[in-house]
Formats: sequence, C-alpha cells, structure tokens
Amino acid sequence: MEGTKQNIVILGSGMVGRAIAADLSYDYNVTAVDIDKNNLAELEKTHSVKTVCANLGDVEQLNACIKDQDLVIGAVPGFMGYKTLKNVILIKKNIVDISFFPEDPFDLFDLAKDNNVTAIIDCGVAPGMSNLILGYHNARMDVKRFECYVGGLPFTRTWPFNYKAPFSPIDVLEEYTRPARLVENSRIVTKPALTDPEIIEFETVGSLEAFNTDGLRTLLKIDVPFMKEKTLRYPGHIEIMRLLRETGFFSKNPVQINNTFVTPLEFTSKILFPQWKLKENEKEFTVMRVIVNGLEGNKEKTYEYNLFDQYDKKTKTSSMARTTGYTCTAAARLLLSGKFDEKGLYPPETIADKPGVFQHIIDYLKERNIHYDLEEY
Amino acid sequence: MEGTKQNIVILGSGMVGRAIAADLSYDYNVTAVDIDKNNLAELEKTHSVKTVCANLGDVEQLNACIKDQDLVIGAVPGFMGYKTLKNVILIKKNIVDISFFPEDPFDLFDLAKDNNVTAIIDCGVAPGMSNLILGYHNARMDVKRFECYVGGLPFTRTWPFNYKAPFSPIDVLEEYTRPARLVENSRIVTKPALTDPEIIEFETVGSLEAFNTDGLRTLLKIDVPFMKEKTLRYPGHIEIMRLLRETGFFSKNPVQINNTFVTPLEFTSKILFPQWKLKENEKEFTVMRVIVNGLEGNKEKTYEYNLFDQYDKKTKTSSMARTTGYTCTAAARLLLSGKFDEKGLYPPETIADKPGVFQHIIDYLKERNIHYDLEEY
Repeated sequence: MEGTKQNIVILGSGMVGRAIAADLSYDYNVTAVDIDKNNLAELEKTHSVKTVCANLGDVEQLNACIKDQDLVIGAVPGFMGYKTLKNVILIKKNIVDISFFPEDPFDLFDLAKDNNVTAIIDCGVAPGMSNLILGYHNARMDVKRFECYVGGLPFTRTWPFNYKAPFSPIDVLEEYTRPARLVENSRIVTKPALTDPEIIEFETVGSLEAFNTDGLRTLLKIDVPFMKEKTLRYPGHIEIMRLLRETGFFSKNPVQINNTFVTPLEFTSKILFPQWKLKENEKEFTVMRVIVNGLEGNKEKTYEYNLFDQYDKKTKTSSMARTTGYTCTAAARLLLSGKFDEKGLYPPETIADKPGVFQHIIDYLKERNIHYDLEEY
Repeated sequence: MEGTKQNIVILGSGMVGRAIAADLSYDYNVTAVDIDKNNLAELEKTHSVKTVCANLGDVEQLNACIKDQDLVIGAVPGFMGYKTLKNVILIKKNIVDISFFPEDPFDLFDLAKDNNVTAIIDCGVAPGMSNLILGYHNARMDVKRFECYVGGLPFTRTWPFNYKAPFSPIDVLEEYTRPARLVENSRIVTKPALTDPEIIEFETVGSLEAFNTDGLRTLLKIDVPFMKEKTLRYPGHIEIMRLLRETGFFSKNPVQINNTFVTPLEFTSKILFPQWKLKENEKEFTVMRVIVNGLEGNKEKTYEYNLFDQYDKKTKTSSMARTTGYTCTAAARLLLSGKFDEKGLYPPETIADKPGVFQHIIDYLKERNIHYDLEEY
C-alpha cells in the first residue's frame, strides 16, 4: 500500500546493529533483535524501534523474526554469520549482511538466485567501501595495483597496547593470527598475519603502522596483479601482538595447569579484553586509505581515497559503527527503493558498477558527514 | 682420626648443588641428596659422591641425612630454605647455605649461637661475593656508595626474550615482581621491581640493561648512605617483562576460565618456562660489577670489581653453578679447616673482615678460573 512504511529487521543489535537501526528508524518500521536485553533497552529509549529479545542461533526463533519483513539486515557476530545468512535466503528474504563470517560466501550464490533473493554481503567499511571502490574503478580502467589500509583506533593512547577494540575483540585476535592472503604478480600469496610492518603517515593522525591482514576475501577473485590489505595500529602495538603470538599466548592448544586444561587464547583474551574495552563515550576514529592504480585510456592513473571519521558526540555513535553501519544502510535503501534488484549474492565490488550505486553511496555517506576524500594523480 | 676425610652432605642437587658436590668430592666424603633421581644419577656417574634420594621437606628424612655429617651445605629451592636451615641448626650441625629464602635470616642468629652452630648464609655470587666485597671494604674505609650489577645470561640471544634462566625460573619472575629495597641518603627506599632501567657497558659482552631488584637483603643493615642492587639483562627484556606484569600476566589473583580458576602467574610460567630453559650444554655467562666508593684516610677512593665467567665446556658446569657454587665451597672449606669457627649466623659481609677470609676466597676462586678483576681509582 502506497505510503505505508516498509518493514526491516536488524539481526544483532551490538554497537553497529544499533547504529543501523537508528539510521533506518526515521523512514521504515524497524525491528531490532538481540539475545542481550541491555543492547535493546538502550535503543528502545532513544529511537522508534520495535525490539525482540531472541536467540538467533535457533532457527525457529530466527524465522519468526524475519517472516513478515521486507528486508533483513545481518549484523550478528562473525562466527554465526554464514548460518544466519543461509537461513534468511531459505526463507526467501532479501538481506544486506555485515557479519564478516570466515566461510566462502560464493557457496550461497546459487541458493540466493534459486530462491529469488538479493543478498548483498560484506557491506561495511572494509570489507565494504574498499570493495566498492575497487569494483567501481575496475570497470573503468585496467587496474594494476590495489592497496587498502584501514584501522579503528582510540584517540587516547594508553601504554602498552595503545589500542581499544571498536568491535569484537575476539575478531581482533583473529586478525592477528589468521594467515593473510594477498596478490603478487597475479598470484595469491599467503603470509602470516602481522607481517610486513610499515609506517604510514596520515595528515589527520600522524604515523601509524600497517601490517598484513586477511581482508581481501572476495576481492581475490578479481584479476588485479597486485593487491594487499593491511590493518593500521599505533606504532609498537603489532610488536607486542607478535611477541604474544609467537611465544604461545594466542595458541589454541590447551595447556595443563594443575588438574585442568586451559587454552592460551582463551586465557589471554580474559586478560586483554577488559583492557581493550572502549570507555563509555570514549572518542575513537576510523582511518582508511584505498589506492587504485593502473592504466586508464593509455595513461597511468592513481585514485587515492582517504577516510577519517570520528566518534559522534551528539548521537554517541562510534566511528566504527558509523562507517560500517551507514554503508550498510545505504545498500539497504538501494534494495528497498528497487534501485538494485538483481537476484543472487553480491559482495560490494559486484554492484559498484550498476547505474547510480557507487555515487549514491558516496553521497549518502557524505550526508552523514563521512567523507571519502579523493585525490587523482 | 687424623687422615680420615670429613663428611659433608649437600642438601639439594640441582645445577648448583651438583657443582658443589663435585668440587668437594676430591677432598671430602660427600653425600648428595635430592628428591629427583635424575639429578643424582648424573652426579654418581661422574664423581665419587654418595647419593641419597629423599624428600628434604620431611623433617625425619632431613635429619637422617645430616645426623652423621661434619658439615651441611644448604642448596634447596628458596621456598624451603628457611625451614631447612632452622632444622639443621636444631640438629646442631654447621651449615653453609645458598638457598636465598625470602624470610629474614637474622631471626635465627640466637638459635644458631645457643646451639653452638656456625651458619654462613647467602654464600653465592650475589648475594655472596657482593656482600663479601662490601663487608671487606666497609671495615677499611668510610663507604658512601655501594652498587652491585649482576646477571646470568645465555650467549645466544633469541627473540623476543633474549634470556634463559640459569636458575629456577619461578625465582626469576619473583625478581620481576618483588618490590626492591635500596638505600638513598641513609634511608631505605622501596621501588617496584624493573624500575630505573639504565644501559651499562661491559667490555666483555657489550651493552646490558640494569633494573632494580631486591638483592641487598642483609646489606640493608650496614650503614652506607647509598646502596643499590640491580639485575642485568640484554636490552629490551625488561620492557617485555614490565608489559606482562603491568597487564596482569604475573598476577596471583585467579581469573575464571569457563568453570575453573587459573592464576595468571601459574599460567604464564607454563608458557614461558620451556622457552627459558637452557639447552643441554648451552653456553651462558655470569657478569657482575660491584662498586664501593667512599673516603679512605681523607681521600675519595673507588674500588670496582668486575667478574666475567663462562660455562665450563670441559666439566659441563654452568657459569651460574661455578660462581655460586665455588663461593660456597670456599666458605665450606674455611669452616672444615677451622679457620672460621665463631658461633651464630653470618651473612658473608659479617665474616669478610675475619683474618684471611676475603683474600682466601678471592684466591680460591682464581684457582677455579673465576676472576674478580679489581680497578682502583
């Protein structure tokens, strides 16, 4: 019925899920779901959002949450992302997902197509905007080199870690241990995480240290001879993480202590995570540099995008939630407005070249004060 | 009976205890005791030493080991040192002790005197030789400043710790956590361990980093306005230890992991100690610098002693065992020969001025190729 608001459900109402729910609540009927009542209480108080406390790991509870919806947003933790996405597709609902699960998403392409579903995945900042940028330029030039540097950091540097985790700390440790895939001379090369440290200068925040992480994911399918993704931290942090990893503190092999077995990773998490928690209203920022270089026409050309985004004092929204969440809501609106309606499973690079998509998202983020500054040379 | 060898029992046959047993075995009837058969087996094979496998924490077993002996050597781990020493005194046996227990040894002075026992304690390298040096010069000059820098290190530096423990690793972690007492302006000052890092140059091994440790112990009773003891490591090691300590990895407060409680210190020990173990026949060294400064007559005078001692390939004796053990056997011989026979409890500084003691020990060590090079200025 014309004039009636469409229905959206957000699966997972953590920091990013709540930012998504808030952003969409002005134009749609939004339902936010989470297993933790505290996450929902905060949202209910401040926004016109319906909330449901449910265990999304349970298929029946999940199905009940999504059956009357026009669109689903997947914002659950990585470890339950794939299963959730698959179930949403089976219920024949369109979905935009940011859960960044470890499994290969392309396994679900045919399932989405067969169920007449549009699924846009990895639709955050990185992966997300980085994929969109490469996809957009790759359709317009012969890309030779793609580099992405990205990090979410606190303004206040506290010895010794100089770090707070703006998303799940267990996913942060995963970044420090999972081997990183990059592309050199058109071949996929695997290097240990935390390797190839280099100091990179940013006008906004000074010197940061970049190291290999496994962030290319679906981009590995694109034919570009050199591609790398690196994560940014304050200088010194990675040396400490390397030290802990190499001396066994991140190991998943249990060690015996008296009469019990303890996994070092679990133990270390217990020690580190309270120290990595952002304080309430602690100011943090997201910094990203994406470089696309290659031949356009017959000329060498480089596009360099720089993002610097900060914690929003007024709405108390973290920068990580803003940059990840609003990319996701931009895609959600594309789907709900019918501007993108192809069936199947799409990481951002595969929709970047569709008419109006890229510029729409860049402009949409600008309205929310998230600026991808472009330099061409 | 003249010509009959005297009887000595070594309580504890770890690395240092075995070096002591070996050194004394040529001139005395030596019995070596340990709870671990492996420690004894090695000794039996190579030297004329009687061995007894016993639990020295059990008073009856301890008494059985010492009752027919002329002298006892205490070389048990620190945590059982005080109790062992007290029992030996109660059985009225003379003892030279190197167990470096945390309790105040002077509590046993009267007990030793009343039982007609001579007990020389802390008779290793540091404490031990450092005490002897200060005691000797303190009787000859007005000492204004005493500094002791000491460390036992492997020749091969392995990232990240650049360290192997030449004695009990749990006692090493104790050095990194126990507050350090030093003397400034004639007042005892307590600082956290690992503080006041400074790079110090050694001709023999290059740059090492020194930090405060609680090594002055009985020397705190001597009236010298400035005294400090610092431990030496390769540069960088203490930063890692500080990092682990300050972030909670050395804490003794249990944390809950799933359904069990684990003490971080215990867990961390489990991770670190295998990495801190010297390989079989791995070359290590002991380095020490002791500075005694003050007024002699009316002139300012400084005595600087430098020790550099290495692993002995021929006898496969570690430098830490040599420098600690042979100071102990020098004192043992003083007692057995009757050259020192005062009754009571004596840390080395209190016997240094007795006729012949200091020079005897320095010369004795020189015979074993352990050189305290003296510079005067």
